[in-house]
Amino acid sequence: MISKSLSKYIQSLHQKKYRQEHGAFLVEGAINVFELSASDYQVELLLTTESFYQENARRLDQQRVRLEMVSADELKRVGTLVANDTCLAVAKTKENRFLVAEADEFVLVLDDVRDPGNLGTILRIADWYGIRKLICSLSTADVYNPKVISASKGSFTRVDWYYCELNAYLSQLPHRPIYGAFLDGASVHSLDFGKSGYIVMGNEANGISLEVEKLVNQRITIPRFGQAESLNVGIATAVICDNLRRARPGK
Amino acid sequence: MISKSLSKYIQSLHQKKYRQEHGAFLVEGAINVFELSASDYQVELLLTTESFYQENARRLDQQRVRLEMVSADELKRVGTLVANDTCLAVAKTKENRFLVAEADEFVLVLDDVRDPGNLGTILRIADWYGIRKLICSLSTADVYNPKVISASKGSFTRVDWYYCELNAYLSQLPHRPIYGAFLDGASVHSLDFGKSGYIVMGNEANGISLEVEKLVNQRITIPRFGQAESLNVGIATAVICDNLRRARPGK
Repeated sequence: MISKSLSKYIQSLHQKKYRQEHGAFLVEGAINVFELSASDYQVELLLTTESFYQENARRLDQQRVRLEMVSADELKRVGTLVANDTCLAVAKTKENRFLVAEADEFVLVLDDVRDPGNLGTILRIADWYGIRKLICSLSTADVYNPKVISASKGSFTRVDWYYCELNAYLSQLPHRPIYGAFLDGASVHSLDFGKSGYIVMGNEANGISLEVEKLVNQRITIPRFGQAESLNVGIATAVICDNLRRARPGK
Repeated sequence: MISKSLSKYIQSLHQKKYRQEHGAFLVEGAINVFELSASDYQVELLLTTESFYQENARRLDQQRVRLEMVSADELKRVGTLVANDTCLAVAKTKENRFLVAEADEFVLVLDDVRDPGNLGTILRIADWYGIRKLICSLSTADVYNPKVISASKGSFTRVDWYYCELNAYLSQLPHRPIYGAFLDGASVHSLDFGKSGYIVMGNEANGISLEVEKLVNQRITIPRFGQAESLNVGIATAVICDNLRRARPGK
């Protein structure tokens, strides 16, 4: 049984305001907590059910951390998942560190991707395709939102991000290709992606903003063979990354 | 203001049991209702706000249909969306008609895809890539679930489906390649997809079932360049379809 104040603290982390105030965020469920424990994130607190801890102590004890035994009901009450009979961790957020594409690297740029589920899926896709960095507009969903962390299935531990004002960021870059996903553009099926660059994905409803569009120097598109009007931003990111890796298997 | 009994009828269609009993389903929001009106589905009833109807009468009046003017509050109350200030339609379901791949056609097979959001996304992907037919296991989400219809963004009008016991269905097919998506298998980046076939996608947590796995004659996989353990089934479907169309732009 955890104290009222601890329970209140954990629940406050459902909200961005308190995550920023405390510099901490929630990680829920077995896969995400295992990946967290094995990562360089600093874990502050671990809540686990007795039976789950018995079976998984080795994977959960990778960091020395305050441990609280709880019931599945308590996990559900303080967390955000519909059901959770395993564990929940509180970890320290990282500072918002400047990132840039190396001379042989591709990074993803998210211009106002609002849906936390989409952002989590994009983290997982980046991780699958060996993309290590995300540049996010200030209006993009908060990566520490519990829904983002859950949807990333642990990939949040292997991808870095930098939140910034995209216009200013992209304007100051050393000369590099800036690819932008539009409904018209060069087909990703025949594109030579070059050695490095930025790949910009836009908002769910409105695509890439007009300001950022001006900074894109290569419009790209996913060829359509049927009649759907568009693809979801997570789906489009995956298809573009897959085509990138067919052309450039490197980093 | 709509009657209590009409409101009760519409709300009953949130549930599969009543959709089957009445042979009817809900279509919500502007895009989906426009696509519905232009399709060969038989529309039974259309609820719309006065202002939305004024602006869109031409697109909404493509079928002669019982029309009810309602408020946005009423739409929200009888429908499933968090907010809806446009329209909602009730349409007749179609019969579960047997489908098979033509000699030059690829179709998707869903083995126990449970999440309605994933099924809706897969309909949209199939529509984008010009795939006209889905074969669904009996345990796959109900395509008439309002969440599936919403997530399909109108693509439910252009893709046909057939629900059946997959084992029996796949066993009786004339000889055709049956591709199955696994974490091990031939890379879709170098696969010759041949002229036609079935592409089986599995359950969100467990993949393709053991029984169906035995009927797969070509295991395929999406090459991984990083460390994520897996991809979501919708994402994987899109990447496979994209690779299929690079190799076989036909139908």
